[in-house]
Amino acid sequence: MLEELKIKVCKANKILPHYNLVTFTWGNVSEIDRESGLMVIKPSGVEYDQMQPEDMCVVDIHTGKVVEGKLKPSSDTPTHIEIYKAWPEVGGIVHTHSRNATTWAQAGCDIVPLGTTHADYFYGAIPCTRRMTVEEINGEYELETGKVIIETFSQRHIDPNDVPGVLVASHGPFVWGTDCMNAVHNAVVLEEIALINFNALRIAPNVASMQQELIDKHFKRKHGKNAYYGQTNSQEVEKHN
Amino acid sequence: MLEELKIKVCKANKILPHYNLVTFTWGNVSEIDRESGLMVIKPSGVEYDQMQPEDMCVVDIHTGKVVEGKLKPSSDTPTHIEIYKAWPEVGGIVHTHSRNATTWAQAGCDIVPLGTTHADYFYGAIPCTRRMTVEEINGEYELETGKVIIETFSQRHIDPNDVPGVLVASHGPFVWGTDCMNAVHNAVVLEEIALINFNALRIAPNVASMQQELIDKHFKRKHGKNAYYGQTNSQEVEKHN
Amino acid sequence: MLEELKIKVCKANKILPHYNLVTFTWGNVSEIDRESGLMVIKPSGVEYDQMQPEDMCVVDIHTGKVVEGKLKPSSDTPTHIEIYKAWPEVGGIVHTHSRNATTWAQAGCDIVPLGTTHADYFYGAIPCTRRMTVEEINGEYELETGKVIIETFSQRHIDPNDVPGVLVASHGPFVWGTDCMNAVHNAVVLEEIALINFNALRIAPNVASMQQELIDKHFKRKHGKNAYYGQTNSQEVEKHN
Amino acid sequence: MLEELKIKVCKANKILPHYNLVTFTWGNVSEIDRESGLMVIKPSGVEYDQMQPEDMCVVDIHTGKVVEGKLKPSSDTPTHIEIYKAWPEVGGIVHTHSRNATTWAQAGCDIVPLGTTHADYFYGAIPCTRRMTVEEINGEYELETGKVIIETFSQRHIDPNDVPGVLVASHGPFVWGTDCMNAVHNAVVLEEIALINFNALRIAPNVASMQQELIDKHFKRKHGKNAYYGQTNSQEVEKHN
Repeated sequence: MLEELKIKVCKANKILPHYNLVTFTWGNVSEIDRESGLMVIKPSGVEYDQMQPEDMCVVDIHTGKVVEGKLKPSSDTPTHIEIYKAWPEVGGIVHTHSRNATTWAQAGCDIVPLGTTHADYFYGAIPCTRRMTVEEINGEYELETGKVIIETFSQRHIDPNDVPGVLVASHGPFVWGTDCMNAVHNAVVLEEIALINFNALRIAPNVASMQQELIDKHFKRKHGKNAYYGQTNSQEVEKHN
Repeated sequence: MLEELKIKVCKANKILPHYNLVTFTWGNVSEIDRESGLMVIKPSGVEYDQMQPEDMCVVDIHTGKVVEGKLKPSSDTPTHIEIYKAWPEVGGIVHTHSRNATTWAQAGCDIVPLGTTHADYFYGAIPCTRRMTVEEINGEYELETGKVIIETFSQRHIDPNDVPGVLVASHGPFVWGTDCMNAVHNAVVLEEIALINFNALRIAPNVASMQQELIDKHFKRKHGKNAYYGQTNSQEVEKHN
Repeated sequence: MLEELKIKVCKANKILPHYNLVTFTWGNVSEIDRESGLMVIKPSGVEYDQMQPEDMCVVDIHTGKVVEGKLKPSSDTPTHIEIYKAWPEVGGIVHTHSRNATTWAQAGCDIVPLGTTHADYFYGAIPCTRRMTVEEINGEYELETGKVIIETFSQRHIDPNDVPGVLVASHGPFVWGTDCMNAVHNAVVLEEIALINFNALRIAPNVASMQQELIDKHFKRKHGKNAYYGQTNSQEVEKHN
Repeated sequence: MLEELKIKVCKANKILPHYNLVTFTWGNVSEIDRESGLMVIKPSGVEYDQMQPEDMCVVDIHTGKVVEGKLKPSSDTPTHIEIYKAWPEVGGIVHTHSRNATTWAQAGCDIVPLGTTHADYFYGAIPCTRRMTVEEINGEYELETGKVIIETFSQRHIDPNDVPGVLVASHGPFVWGTDCMNAVHNAVVLEEIALINFNALRIAPNVASMQQELIDKHFKRKHGKNAYYGQTNSQEVEKHN
């Protein structure tokens, strides 16, 4: 069942340590097969270098149940499901505790756009959620985490296709993309942006956000029908990056 | 004598440079065999890549004497002994001068919990001891270091099983666990937390500690009888991490 | 056509990840053949480890057209062209989003000389450009980027041979040199200086710039006819570094 | 002539990039043969991975002349000579532009002792020199650099055997030891201390220096006749570290 997707998701998970996005088992990647409504996700607490495609868990996003796999899925599975259910264009999701993005999440602050590195991938500030309520924490915590992410985008009128990532306050980043590889790509970018913006604000704490026109220029150079970065269109570049 | 344990402790010591926790010979790992009251510890000033299981020192924690081994044990041996004697559930101990944890020790500050990365492993602030008195420094210094660690936990009513590490003021971290491998695991986590918390406070110096409910949620997701992270229970995950 | 130069430019591009100057495909190197007025530059959005000499693009700097190569040239090609046209002694150019230099670009600040590491290569402050105007951003953006770089040096009376690099505000560094290898060398130096100066200003925010005499001493120890660093003259050292 | 020493000094130079103390050719190591008054030092501007023992330069410290070697010695040779002439117990010297130590040199600040990592190797603050005068810079600059280092220790009554390193203002560190290997060892330690102290002061800018008694304890645990760290005495540990 979904053998090819398991190979791909397993590979995407194994990329996380290569890019220094994870310590131990602190990160998970999933991808959804939209036709069947089935999601393939990393098992909980298993190390990346020992992981095999057959260890991946197949989960039905409508019932939340594992439909294939001997291992328990990542404890963050309900968060992934909420995102897939709310945002039909999301194809893959990554959650990590990567250092720089988690720094911002722990500080409880948005990452505002200060440079073209940011605008090439994120069309505006990367939002930090509000803290979760005691009820949410003590209730179905991982599912409520997903709901808070969606609420953040909805209340702030941010399109998740324009800003493919979020900082969950006191926790860490969730990043998505057209598929799991694109989501991992965006997670690497977020980590890089998080560091550069952090440092830039050490030098110039009151520096103004970059101009909206420059954000437009760079985001649209890489995304949408007028994209001109890469060899044919933004879609292909994302793929082969 | 304790051949298997020597192999394990030697291996645990060799992991320290792999995780960038040590420069030169600045770190030592031990594990205790509770039945016999014997502790296996790294020899003093020997390099990790040349170390062999037969170089390990076996020390009786009741007499403080070496009962096997041709080399002198780590100069921090009396600190390890004090901890093993005070806290019966501790199975392994690591001492390093790892960069980020030592930063906090030199600053003389606790690491307060700001995110789930912290709460997954440490159930509350990681305390920094008071400075040692002149009498303690000029007396049995390494033994007194152990006493100050225990005093810190006792006076602040912290359970060493909930918070498996401490910062010794003007010195560096001591970290423990159920065995030496778990102690090394916790030392890696401490180093990571120390960095993320450091940076988060650069962005938001006055950020409030994370909510107690969130600390409860994350710590108990991984520890205790209701743990649900990993494949069966927290014990096993710790082991295979 | 220019086969040897394509091999060299391809190699120079591949050096970028080796020195941690790039993430993914975020950087490009070119070199000009002054006799023919043809420039060899990296194709857009292609990964460094897959790049071959035959993938390089040959561009006529007078017409701006690709005269050889199956792939589209880097989207920053018009910026490279403007620099080559304005400054006849520039032989190679590098653009990256390297972390430390980009930090300063995002902060919108010059890097003032604080030490001999800086003065060995850059004879004075490394300037940050003004922000671009809306007209420039919405016009021929990459060409206008080149014009803003040149304007910065012209208005501030900086000789591009003395200061072989610039920070484009809200964007990142452009660095040049006598050829593409020398440009990459200078880009590595800039990244190193950017970090050391950043940190020095954390310790001493009001530290005075280094003395002009010390800048003179170090720059001239490595550059010009009285150079005495290296085995014969500065030219050769640059080459074999 | 001094063939064994050339092999050793060549090896010591090659260790510099291994410990991330140098970029390109920015560092040099020497050792003196006290009997003959001859010093072996790295040639100027030559890369570490291409360097061979026969490339080393032999310099007479009394005349300052090269007595063997086809290549020009490091441009910092006169600084090394001044140190060897002033301090008879120094056996080896290292100069680099290593990031963290250079940060402090550029800030123009001493590194005060904040923790045992520092006190294990440096018995008190690591001093930063005054800035050089215009006359010194325009005169025999590298020789004057040596004189300013010696003046700093003399005026501040610091014993160079107790504090085996200095920060030259606006420049970088010079570090020494009993031989060239011990000097490189101390240079690695300085780089580590420089980082940890830098970060500790970000957390606690007004933290008091560590207690003198703790400095005594740690320095003397590793140095002098009562040393008890390592297998027999401090000398041997230094050697085999």
